[in-house]
Amino acid sequence: IGTAKYVGISLKKLIKDCGGLIKGGKHLELYGAETYFKNDEVMNYLVSVPWSKVKANEVILAWEMNGEPLPKIHGYPLRVVVLGYIGARSVKWLYRVKAIEDPSLAPVQSKEYLYFNQQVGKHNQRPTDGIQIQEMPVSSAIMSPWTKQVVIHNGKIRCKGWAYSGGGRWPERVELSADGGFSWYAVPNKNLSEKHKWTWRTWEFDLPCDVEGWIEIVCRCWDNSLNTQPLNIRAAWNWGLHVTSSAHRISVYSINKTRALTNQRLAKFEHTGAPLAPLTWPEEFQTQSWEEYKTYWKENDPRDVDD
Amino acid sequence: IGTAKYVGISLKKLIKDCGGLIKGGKHLELYGAETYFKNDEVMNYLVSVPWSKVKANEVILAWEMNGEPLPKIHGYPLRVVVLGYIGARSVKWLYRVKAIEDPSLAPVQSKEYLYFNQQVGKHNQRPTDGIQIQEMPVSSAIMSPWTKQVVIHNGKIRCKGWAYSGGGRWPERVELSADGGFSWYAVPNKNLSEKHKWTWRTWEFDLPCDVEGWIEIVCRCWDNSLNTQPLNIRAAWNWGLHVTSSAHRISVYSINKTRALTNQRLAKFEHTGAPLAPLTWPEEFQTQSWEEYKTYWKENDPRDVDD
Repeated sequence: IGTAKYVGISLKKLIKDCGGLIKGGKHLELYGAETYFKNDEVMNYLVSVPWSKVKANEVILAWEMNGEPLPKIHGYPLRVVVLGYIGARSVKWLYRVKAIEDPSLAPVQSKEYLYFNQQVGKHNQRPTDGIQIQEMPVSSAIMSPWTKQVVIHNGKIRCKGWAYSGGGRWPERVELSADGGFSWYAVPNKNLSEKHKWTWRTWEFDLPCDVEGWIEIVCRCWDNSLNTQPLNIRAAWNWGLHVTSSAHRISVYSINKTRALTNQRLAKFEHTGAPLAPLTWPEEFQTQSWEEYKTYWKENDPRDVDD
Repeated sequence: IGTAKYVGISLKKLIKDCGGLIKGGKHLELYGAETYFKNDEVMNYLVSVPWSKVKANEVILAWEMNGEPLPKIHGYPLRVVVLGYIGARSVKWLYRVKAIEDPSLAPVQSKEYLYFNQQVGKHNQRPTDGIQIQEMPVSSAIMSPWTKQVVIHNGKIRCKGWAYSGGGRWPERVELSADGGFSWYAVPNKNLSEKHKWTWRTWEFDLPCDVEGWIEIVCRCWDNSLNTQPLNIRAAWNWGLHVTSSAHRISVYSINKTRALTNQRLAKFEHTGAPLAPLTWPEEFQTQSWEEYKTYWKENDPRDVDD
């Protein structure tokens, strides 16, 4: 995911200039010069968008990206940009636009980018069982820390990430959990990048975490329609793997410097130059001397009970 | 929730006829003749909608509902209908429209209908901590059976309900689970009412259920942006209780007639005229005779082991 600034012309205006749609045109088929193979056939990259989307001035033909002529890789000389839809509709190297009555039967439109129900498997998927993906649901991800990372912190783990919602909606709130999704902290507004239609927001946050050991950090987003993400992948998994927008979960190993013992221990690791990671590395020094061990049991209840 | 057909005029056209917005107007404040008390003050019902919503022709002033003059209770002679927004913005008994620079400070707009984060409680809620609710997230509910109902069925439980999504989005798929949300069945398209923008869809479905006893039926919806609902209320609960759109869960007591013993037993209940419900009712006849009991243990392993 990224966000670019395009310059171009609204496809609606172009069509109006050409005299408008005739003969029951309700969808615009967009042809890219790119070719690809499918079922032993060579064909052009081809999809369609509904006229209602074009009519809303949300489909543009662009020749400039981020203040410069469109790079070749982004579709020079002319590409489509369909605001708020999946990228598959934003055809590059555009060479033809055709008005048709029904959504395109081209495979990218009719047989790929489908959202199936959980019980539709590889063995029985029919294209009509899937929803044709256009707008994306609300989604988000943690970019830092990485999963399996050992994180040394002062009771708060610095997290960074992004959040997005399709169809011109935008993230209104991002929440993080350090306990697998039981309690949630809202990222303060000042820690979110500016909000706009058609674009993501990045965020950063010091997530409170008192515990040590393996923890699960989860992030989720609420958009301006108050939609949010499924919390578990199983609740959203579907054949084809498209749009599995469930909350991003990462496992990190928390080492909390606000704990005196942890701090002492870290100092010792540093002093001796011993590596802390990988966690499976055998340690060069013990956590307790035999003296400390014996003193403890002298001052505390013995392990066994006499009578 | 309901769906009506309104006749009226687009507020956009009216404003254009009056010369358009001047002096930096960006929100339209809508005054209803209705009055109410708040903090020892009497005031009119008052909210605002952004100009962008008006500009999209999605705010109308209506005088007719379902082919008849607006009923008094629905705002006669003139009400606002804001398509795809919460009902609180569709002001009844409209008597004034005012262009303002920022969203209205009237309490309904600024201090009520807010969506708080889970950790914002009664003791510390500040209006700016909440998202002003406009479009609703995707939601759904089971209308039949009712929670706590005893359901006698043939391996499939007939369920009925509705599904909705705000902002002009619509339900694309409704799913039901008879095992608390582990496995999901999609309602076939023919069992959903027709789809339109700005309105709900009703559905019915024979939900497969083999087991007997207390089960949890869950329903959830995916809208055309592929957004879905939080599965548990705890994941969505917030102070103010607005928009807790988590999946609807009901507990029903399943009695499965495809089981031979269940069928025999039901016949006996019917034969003796004994009531089946309430389930706590003492039964008038035993499930096994002493003879059946003894025969069983003669033919099967004894309860105790000799050596």
